[in-house]
Amino acid sequence: MTERLSADDRQKALATLAEWTHDPVADAISREFVFKDFAEAFSFMTRVADLAEKADHHPDWSNSYNRVVIGLKSHDAGGLTKRDISLAGKIDRL
Amino acid sequence: MTERLSADDRQKALATLAEWTHDPVADAISREFVFKDFAEAFSFMTRVADLAEKADHHPDWSNSYNRVVIGLKSHDAGGLTKRDISLAGKIDRL
Repeated sequence: MTERLSADDRQKALATLAEWTHDPVADAISREFVFKDFAEAFSFMTRVADLAEKADHHPDWSNSYNRVVIGLKSHDAGGLTKRDISLAGKIDRL
Repeated sequence: MTERLSADDRQKALATLAEWTHDPVADAISREFVFKDFAEAFSFMTRVADLAEKADHHPDWSNSYNRVVIGLKSHDAGGLTKRDISLAGKIDRL
């Protein structure tokens, strides 16, 4: 299990993820992605799924037509860890 | 646009979809699917995405590791239509 980030480390990490919203109660981050249509949205999801499998770290996410909302949190640690920050960064670079 | 089902037609249709839950307020149906792991869950999602594209009718759905929750509703009609019933049946047969 990876350790939950300290407040200081979390603040530094979140500064690198400008598009993500931090929920301080859940200590989770989320980002919404909007595409042209369902086909584009699901194509993106398959690329995220591949990243998630490779990282062995999986999002809580939803899709409705052209919208994808991705939530990240390390459930075993009860909040954000470096694994969430790393996966968010990889998703941003897709 | 397909017409929303009458109460009578809806009742008959739902009788064929025993695993689905009807939300009478939203007039939508949903079903949860549980798999061995993320890879199996996402493989199922790719097959549902293919069905959805072919039907030009798309779910509101979410995934968390090995769980997939699929919601169906015809947003343009404000509730269930035969398109939802048809797609739910196809998903059940996967």
